[in-house]
Amino acid sequence: MSRFASLAAFDAALADMPIADADAIAAARARQASLTKPAGSLGRLEDIAVLMAGWQGTAQPVIEHGRAAIFAGNHGFVVHGVSAFPASVTAAMVTNFAAGGAAINALAKAAGLNLQVIALDLDRPTADFTTAAAMDEAECLAALSAGAAAVEPGLHLLVVGEMGIGNSTAAAALCARSYGGTPASWVGPGTGVDADGIARKVVVVEQALACHADAPDTPFEILRRLGGREIAAIAGAVLEARRLHIPVVLDGFISCAALAPLAAAVPAITDHCLAGHCSAEPGHIRLLGHLDLDPLLSLGMRLGEGSGAALAVSIIRAALATHNGMATFAQAGVADSL
Amino acid sequence: MSRFASLAAFDAALADMPIADADAIAAARARQASLTKPAGSLGRLEDIAVLMAGWQGTAQPVIEHGRAAIFAGNHGFVVHGVSAFPASVTAAMVTNFAAGGAAINALAKAAGLNLQVIALDLDRPTADFTTAAAMDEAECLAALSAGAAAVEPGLHLLVVGEMGIGNSTAAAALCARSYGGTPASWVGPGTGVDADGIARKVVVVEQALACHADAPDTPFEILRRLGGREIAAIAGAVLEARRLHIPVVLDGFISCAALAPLAAAVPAITDHCLAGHCSAEPGHIRLLGHLDLDPLLSLGMRLGEGSGAALAVSIIRAALATHNGMATFAQAGVADSL
Repeated sequence: MSRFASLAAFDAALADMPIADADAIAAARARQASLTKPAGSLGRLEDIAVLMAGWQGTAQPVIEHGRAAIFAGNHGFVVHGVSAFPASVTAAMVTNFAAGGAAINALAKAAGLNLQVIALDLDRPTADFTTAAAMDEAECLAALSAGAAAVEPGLHLLVVGEMGIGNSTAAAALCARSYGGTPASWVGPGTGVDADGIARKVVVVEQALACHADAPDTPFEILRRLGGREIAAIAGAVLEARRLHIPVVLDGFISCAALAPLAAAVPAITDHCLAGHCSAEPGHIRLLGHLDLDPLLSLGMRLGEGSGAALAVSIIRAALATHNGMATFAQAGVADSL
Repeated sequence: MSRFASLAAFDAALADMPIADADAIAAARARQASLTKPAGSLGRLEDIAVLMAGWQGTAQPVIEHGRAAIFAGNHGFVVHGVSAFPASVTAAMVTNFAAGGAAINALAKAAGLNLQVIALDLDRPTADFTTAAAMDEAECLAALSAGAAAVEPGLHLLVVGEMGIGNSTAAAALCARSYGGTPASWVGPGTGVDADGIARKVVVVEQALACHADAPDTPFEILRRLGGREIAAIAGAVLEARRLHIPVVLDGFISCAALAPLAAAVPAITDHCLAGHCSAEPGHIRLLGHLDLDPLLSLGMRLGEGSGAALAVSIIRAALATHNGMATFAQAGVADSL
């Protein structure tokens, strides 16, 4: 049975989110204070370990079962020339993922992640959101459920990512609708359009916002009208991970934009999330600010596919390696004044 | 025989540094352009792979033999109360390294690095540099040589780090002498002194600079007067790595300050180096600017021990995993317009 069989199930998931385990957080902080280093000297590695502890509900969190779930979808508005690449590249890259040849294959392997690629009706693009809702209610619920289905109890960490030609335009529309600001302030070059392409993207976002100006201001309506299947799937996966207390690593602008409509209404949705990186897409750093997330990496990446998030997992693993593997002052016999 | 048996050997190493292999760089760039991703979309991962290619002299660089060399030393000026910890902690932490309980143990293991800890005459601190040169010529050459001895042909990557109670004060003195600026502008809290401690550090640096104001402005003289054994060892290791075409990952403020006197005279000394991270020590970001290095990570770490550099190795490994592991457009049958 689908996780989000009805709008009520989606609204309930957003209204009733579990919180982190305060005892595990306290125990993890106490452990950090006992390790042979000056207090705070591992910086964000310490915070990462404590966050992981809180969601896993244990003082010593691990990543034995980590997954990268990459969702792919196609978009009706690409007929307006918003991407440097034809829509057929979405399916071609999914084939490349299956063959193991893409960046995410190499990065998921390096990070010790199980990689799942979920292609969502690639031969049936969403409707052109400049003139209609991208998805009807059933389509959006199906995409949310497909996202949730990629998450299961027992995962220690979930990385989310996407592939979808044109989807940085949908992300810009989601951000502008969720947080305000002009379309131009949210539109960027994506994977590589020129100034003319950016101008076309701005017009498409303006048209989409105008078309849906009177739509109800709810997370679901914004997501189904201005999002896409891979974007809704990410939202569904993040919600399901929250229900299951599984920490999430978000990827770039598009993955984060999937949460924009949810976070604008319920900011706590990102409490179990880490921002893997800040991408080169200009709107991303601003979106991260709205989501109250501080990125772990900032390496000028702008590929998607979950690549930046998968890369960040090595940092999270190192945080846990120090948290779980270091000696305490008592064990090492080092003066505990250190 | 010692690598730096004489001052002439040191000067020669600095005067005659090899450069990267231009053919390997070109071949690595060509490979990057052939991989199934938009050009440039992996950001700095692409640059890292090309840099590694240039120094390893191959289009497809690897890290099968990576080493973290951590040098420890003690400083005479600590009698002036510049550290939150007693000098005995240097030796205690070296014992902790040997027992496997420190942060660098966990991080070197996570990064797949062979860890070598080289303790340099811990029971014989350098002279107090507020009244004399920290080291005489023979002592400084011995420390440089100890650094070089930790590097050997066949290493694919070298991480350098340090442990030495008080050594952020020496680092501040080296920076101020090498690049100008007031002592106060280079002094920070280190691993955790308060405002009074910072004030004492500033006075100590002022006294050291005054004491050695008339010293010759050469890399060797600055290093031996204002440095320390672990600091000179890092300089020696980086020079030896350069001779052997081994790329280096620098750690925090102190590791980078070891290069300041060298780089002020010969900026190209950092060409084979990556800055693993930017630490929380305020002077580090400014020093990285002088060294023309852009840090890979910025996670608020301030531990030393090579910890930030070892952490960054996972990023470098991921860069090589994509560079070597991804399919080319031809292999994947994806439109090469991507």
